[in-house]
Amino acid sequence: MRIVDIIEKKRDGKELSTEEIRFFISGFCDDKITDYQASALLMAIFIRGLNTRETADLTMAMADSGDRIDLSEIPGVKVDKHSTGGVGDKTTLILAPVVAACGVPIAKMSGRGLGHTGGTIDKLESIKGLRTSLNREEFIDNVKQIGIALAGQTGNLAPADKRLYALRDVTATVSSIPLIASSIMSKKIASGADKIVLDVKTGSGAFMKTFDQSVMLARQMVSIGDHMGRRTVAVITDMDTPLGNNIGNSLEVLEAIEVLRGQGPEDLKIVCLELAARMLELAGKGSVEQCRRLAEMAIRDGSALLKFKDMALRQGADYPPWDERAMEPAAVQEPVYAPFEGYIASIQSDIAGRSSMILGAGRETKESTIDYSAGIILNKKPGEFVKKGEQLAKLHTSNVPKLREAREMLLGAYKVSDSPPDAKPLILAYIDKDKITKF
Amino acid sequence: MRIVDIIEKKRDGKELSTEEIRFFISGFCDDKITDYQASALLMAIFIRGLNTRETADLTMAMADSGDRIDLSEIPGVKVDKHSTGGVGDKTTLILAPVVAACGVPIAKMSGRGLGHTGGTIDKLESIKGLRTSLNREEFIDNVKQIGIALAGQTGNLAPADKRLYALRDVTATVSSIPLIASSIMSKKIASGADKIVLDVKTGSGAFMKTFDQSVMLARQMVSIGDHMGRRTVAVITDMDTPLGNNIGNSLEVLEAIEVLRGQGPEDLKIVCLELAARMLELAGKGSVEQCRRLAEMAIRDGSALLKFKDMALRQGADYPPWDERAMEPAAVQEPVYAPFEGYIASIQSDIAGRSSMILGAGRETKESTIDYSAGIILNKKPGEFVKKGEQLAKLHTSNVPKLREAREMLLGAYKVSDSPPDAKPLILAYIDKDKITKF
Repeated sequence: MRIVDIIEKKRDGKELSTEEIRFFISGFCDDKITDYQASALLMAIFIRGLNTRETADLTMAMADSGDRIDLSEIPGVKVDKHSTGGVGDKTTLILAPVVAACGVPIAKMSGRGLGHTGGTIDKLESIKGLRTSLNREEFIDNVKQIGIALAGQTGNLAPADKRLYALRDVTATVSSIPLIASSIMSKKIASGADKIVLDVKTGSGAFMKTFDQSVMLARQMVSIGDHMGRRTVAVITDMDTPLGNNIGNSLEVLEAIEVLRGQGPEDLKIVCLELAARMLELAGKGSVEQCRRLAEMAIRDGSALLKFKDMALRQGADYPPWDERAMEPAAVQEPVYAPFEGYIASIQSDIAGRSSMILGAGRETKESTIDYSAGIILNKKPGEFVKKGEQLAKLHTSNVPKLREAREMLLGAYKVSDSPPDAKPLILAYIDKDKITKF
Repeated sequence: MRIVDIIEKKRDGKELSTEEIRFFISGFCDDKITDYQASALLMAIFIRGLNTRETADLTMAMADSGDRIDLSEIPGVKVDKHSTGGVGDKTTLILAPVVAACGVPIAKMSGRGLGHTGGTIDKLESIKGLRTSLNREEFIDNVKQIGIALAGQTGNLAPADKRLYALRDVTATVSSIPLIASSIMSKKIASGADKIVLDVKTGSGAFMKTFDQSVMLARQMVSIGDHMGRRTVAVITDMDTPLGNNIGNSLEVLEAIEVLRGQGPEDLKIVCLELAARMLELAGKGSVEQCRRLAEMAIRDGSALLKFKDMALRQGADYPPWDERAMEPAAVQEPVYAPFEGYIASIQSDIAGRSSMILGAGRETKESTIDYSAGIILNKKPGEFVKKGEQLAKLHTSNVPKLREAREMLLGAYKVSDSPPDAKPLILAYIDKDKITKF
């Protein structure tokens, strides 16, 4: 088998065999296939596509390129959740303790963020002392003892995906549905969960800008998961507007604690309860309505918040996460006043995310460091009426010279209208096997 | 400007600007753009294509990436010829001295072969003592003194093309018409000729397998040349069957000498006279019919053969090329007898070329060395009737263990039929500006 023949085949729009896909991934990992051959093949895949069988084969080959985490020591059904990423998306911080409080073990590996805002791991690390690099024993042991562990991905989880992603990032081959689907699913498969709930975001702040693209991506991933014996379902949720009010690492932890206290913004609560209910349902805790009530109960009786505290302290946090010493506040907190008057029609998430990144909350390059305390609190969300000069948001940062640029950018995210905008649903669809239910 | 944006643009089928193409070529030469980014862009170009303007810009950027040969010291119109390559194609060895003998200066740079058979330079080097690496002064001086010099390309002629070609070779991006056209034309432009005759081969032994593809390639190149003020015309010639009877380096020199003596096979003579006539016509020596007669005369009166000898001796040949000491004969010469009976319908060139390569006449990899004496003499050509057991061909080699494989392969190139095949034209079309004349 020669890589140049494989590239030629895909270049001409032909289907690759299982053996050809495995030959590519193993040769790439062993440095027998060069980066320039891999990038030519990635571009051919980007333009010509992969069918479901090829995508599943690529996923499996990447999952097999490194370690596979064995969670079988942990009793019960292990359910994982993955979000395709958005602005203000702190759902893991909320639903992981909620689900764990309902008796379903959470052994979750998450990534760091690239771009807009931090990832779950960055958010957790804004809590002083909290460690996310757990070794295998500690990770499993924590789940067995307290039912929850949230850790960073180990270095050798789907290393082929890691290397390919770095190559895709600099060769304009990121936004391909089969490549995104196999990248996400290879890590999920290698992470060892029995069942998976996918939160596929759609809209301006998401990878997938349209509902149809999001459904295509979700279907591909659901089909890959099911194909591999890991029951997978997907929820399509809105990411046209940032989720919740807070954007930025420690600000998002604070908002997560609010929700775990039964407070916090409505949109965030709705998405978290939907995802928690789907996870509990997959774990066999009853119908989705029963599971939603279970999740609500775990918040109301405080058990979810306690679970969050247990996790934080067990992973080394210096204080309970609600203690004011647990996180550093930002040096500067500057209000943004409305230069307009009217109903907020939308706040474009990607622009709000970029503004937050400028303040220090995200990474511009892989080498950038994050300012955990930086970010934005939105005081007004779409649908609300704003008077001229009223406070719209507050910028948090320690980088004062960036305030002006961040403010200008954030203001560019708002669309204002004379009449109240139509209410938009947050949960757009649910995908299970071949069936799609639109809401 | 960022290369990743340029890749994305072409990936999505958009047109690249002149600045973007120059940014790519100069960045690639300066190692600011990596091989893996270049190969992703090449694949996008392969699949999405380049329009005429983009192809001309790419050609110019590659021609400008290294030295440009200045032939202005040589008086008269300098006409170059380029063949897209085929099996048994020794036309340069014949028409260069013919055209020079008619008073048109020939300052020609040629390449080595990759694959099937050697290139013009390899063929010339089968003559003992003959040097093809001439420095600039020697090259120009030889043309001024005797009207002809045939040299290898200098290292710094269109270096961007050289590097890109090496990358295309291992990433399945060779057979793209705009990439082939710009590759050929960038070297021709940098080589300094005023006018160019292209011999675009078509058929089994050529890059372009069909007549329509060959016409597309020819049109692209003619349009690029004219666009750059280098008047360019193209002749489409048949390469379904090897040209002439001899394949292999010294064997092809021997056949070229035969033609220069007024003998040799008819097909080879027809193609050489057509190309020589077109070159002389571009040089202003009269109508194409007048020029054809001039070329015939240069053969009949022996002046072309003398010109070939002058060139060989001036470039260091130990003996006149017709001296039996001038080239080493092959150690083994083994006849191939027909295992069939009937009319030869065709001899597939690419297979015959591969058989000749196995005998040692071509390079399997860039590192392979050539056995100058190795090759094949075809005793029967399409249209001839062959009796079972009659001699079909003779294999020349010094690598006896390869004889069996080469013989089996060569026999696989023949198609035999009960009735004589239809005669096929050798010269299929002539392209000048937008006008195509089919024959």
